[in-house]
Amino acid sequence: MSERRQPVLGVLGGGQLARMLALAGAPLGVNTLVVDSAADACAGQVAPLVVADWTDYAALEAFAGRVDVVTFDFENVPAETARWLAERVKVSPAPLALAVAQDRLAEKTLFRECGLPTPDFMTVDTREQLDQALAVVGVPAILKTRRLGYDGKGQFRLRDRADADAAWAALGAQASRHGLILEAFVPFERELSVIAVRGRDGDFRTWPLTRNWHVDGVLSMSLAPAPDIEQLQQRATALARTLAERLDYVGVFALELFVKDGELLGNEMAPRVHNSGHWTIEGAHASQFENHVRAVLGLPLGDTGARGPSAMFNWIGELPDASAVLRVVDAHWHDYGKQARPGRKVGHATVCATGAGQLAARLGQVAAALGREAQVAPVLSALG
Amino acid sequence: MSERRQPVLGVLGGGQLARMLALAGAPLGVNTLVVDSAADACAGQVAPLVVADWTDYAALEAFAGRVDVVTFDFENVPAETARWLAERVKVSPAPLALAVAQDRLAEKTLFRECGLPTPDFMTVDTREQLDQALAVVGVPAILKTRRLGYDGKGQFRLRDRADADAAWAALGAQASRHGLILEAFVPFERELSVIAVRGRDGDFRTWPLTRNWHVDGVLSMSLAPAPDIEQLQQRATALARTLAERLDYVGVFALELFVKDGELLGNEMAPRVHNSGHWTIEGAHASQFENHVRAVLGLPLGDTGARGPSAMFNWIGELPDASAVLRVVDAHWHDYGKQARPGRKVGHATVCATGAGQLAARLGQVAAALGREAQVAPVLSALG
Repeated sequence: MSERRQPVLGVLGGGQLARMLALAGAPLGVNTLVVDSAADACAGQVAPLVVADWTDYAALEAFAGRVDVVTFDFENVPAETARWLAERVKVSPAPLALAVAQDRLAEKTLFRECGLPTPDFMTVDTREQLDQALAVVGVPAILKTRRLGYDGKGQFRLRDRADADAAWAALGAQASRHGLILEAFVPFERELSVIAVRGRDGDFRTWPLTRNWHVDGVLSMSLAPAPDIEQLQQRATALARTLAERLDYVGVFALELFVKDGELLGNEMAPRVHNSGHWTIEGAHASQFENHVRAVLGLPLGDTGARGPSAMFNWIGELPDASAVLRVVDAHWHDYGKQARPGRKVGHATVCATGAGQLAARLGQVAAALGREAQVAPVLSALG
Repeated sequence: MSERRQPVLGVLGGGQLARMLALAGAPLGVNTLVVDSAADACAGQVAPLVVADWTDYAALEAFAGRVDVVTFDFENVPAETARWLAERVKVSPAPLALAVAQDRLAEKTLFRECGLPTPDFMTVDTREQLDQALAVVGVPAILKTRRLGYDGKGQFRLRDRADADAAWAALGAQASRHGLILEAFVPFERELSVIAVRGRDGDFRTWPLTRNWHVDGVLSMSLAPAPDIEQLQQRATALARTLAERLDYVGVFALELFVKDGELLGNEMAPRVHNSGHWTIEGAHASQFENHVRAVLGLPLGDTGARGPSAMFNWIGELPDASAVLRVVDAHWHDYGKQARPGRKVGHATVCATGAGQLAARLGQVAAALGREAQVAPVLSALG
């Protein structure tokens, strides 16, 4: 029996996604090494952490030498850093996919090329172009930075054309550096996401569609499988597959969708494991984290089927009382090991069940114990 | 929002049990600190590791100062070390429970006091006493060390009284140090185990009974819930509760049982999470690892119900080809991150299903891919 060497997964970014990737990798015999500029990055509690920023090439060189493949916890790693690493070590997803997902213009253009309609949009580089774009796109609309936005950051909503000055005051300074884009605000009926994974051998799978509810631009609740979606699952899976093949994507990604008049519209793509897929840890046969590790290391993908219905509560800012969740059957607590801070994602809880009625009862139990009836109300309504 | 301090679980012993405790603690926001004398102890891949032996009191003093509660990965930590630590920090289970479980005489005496019959036994301190014990206990019988035995180590099986010399040659030297005990060999019909957990508040739960198959004294396969057990579940739960209350036990323990003529006999108790409970990671609502962490930290216990039937393969010596398991729906791979070594527990796999027929089909798929039909045969037979 010769000395074995375990594979090492390198992760750029040391937040909760890296933490959950490391926890999913361990049973597969995969060790994780994380890079983050913060010495207290929460993934460092479960995996060794290299403290370095994205331009510390000496540290990145040493990191590349210690890992078998590099992946991302965070899509805003500079594309330049990703490309530099890709010359030294396998990087999955590839820097091209990262670059597309980092730029709202490239992303929406790709969506349309793949047959996925998007809300109307126009790029905006000057104050004058904002007026022109408003004339074309109409109101209500949302002005967004082309790059570096997430969780509603870098966005300004315009109710009418008179809001243009305020929007420019908020974001105009970023026009030259990150670019801006004006998007029509779509009065959608539902928000869905499809979490997909593609293996190194081209094997492609999606988890059941997830229905999502956001509050102030940040995910509040998810429900999976999304009820009453009929033919949308097939369509979403086909679109995700086309996107993945275009990008020769390897790993997990999320495609956020709106439903309007029963049709899918593309909102954005996240080139990584995604908050709306956290329910897969307990709610599916293989989680998004496990399958991402399997994909980037070239292992066979696991089954993405759901065990039953699940719902996820996101904990933003600070954790509520854990015991309210710990006492509920098949409810699962996830504390990311972070300090509380307004707006910060500090944890989540997933509640699983064998049927919709049982899930609703358990969600009601958690909500009542925590005084979170408002957070759970839309999910209960969707569960009928 | 004040600075939070996460609880720290200290674990004596850094093997796969400590590793799986650390992985179960992380989502609860619990950090783990492990002590082991080996610098390459596999739990050190997922948690910080203090390299020290059980009599390095300077290291243990520093360790005690860094943790909220101490528990065990290994029941043969010297009772003296456990008592010394218990004067400085909370230790769960308490040193008394550890001491009882470390001594086959104390353990069997306690079983009988709790109403659980055991095979006949007699202590043996000299060669002459071995003959006397054989006359009383009869043959076949097993001579065992009273302390420090596990996984069939420190045991000698006697087919007839003429084997006494060979048995004494094998184990006699340990009589003065660890003590010996001669136990009647019971031609049992089945081996079962009950995994139980008791909280700091006295809350007590058991997982469904597990049926086990050993090869050469080492666990080979487990099946849960054990089929066709009728009233034995209730009896096993009641016995485990009595034992736990007698010892004021806090945490998870396993009670290994034989079934003979439809009745339970006590074999031994393990004062820790147990190999026959590994199926609970995916097969139950809360795993033995999660509930042990919850119990010793005083959190509410999780539900111990099974999601459906599960079976576990133990990987001894070296890992088979992972992809044979990774390709099967609801099959879960556990690589402990150890070097291969004859007789060593290096990993396991759990296969889950929604019914007995589906489980049998999936087990057959794994066994065929790995050429392990013999390992799985008794489980398929038990599944009918």
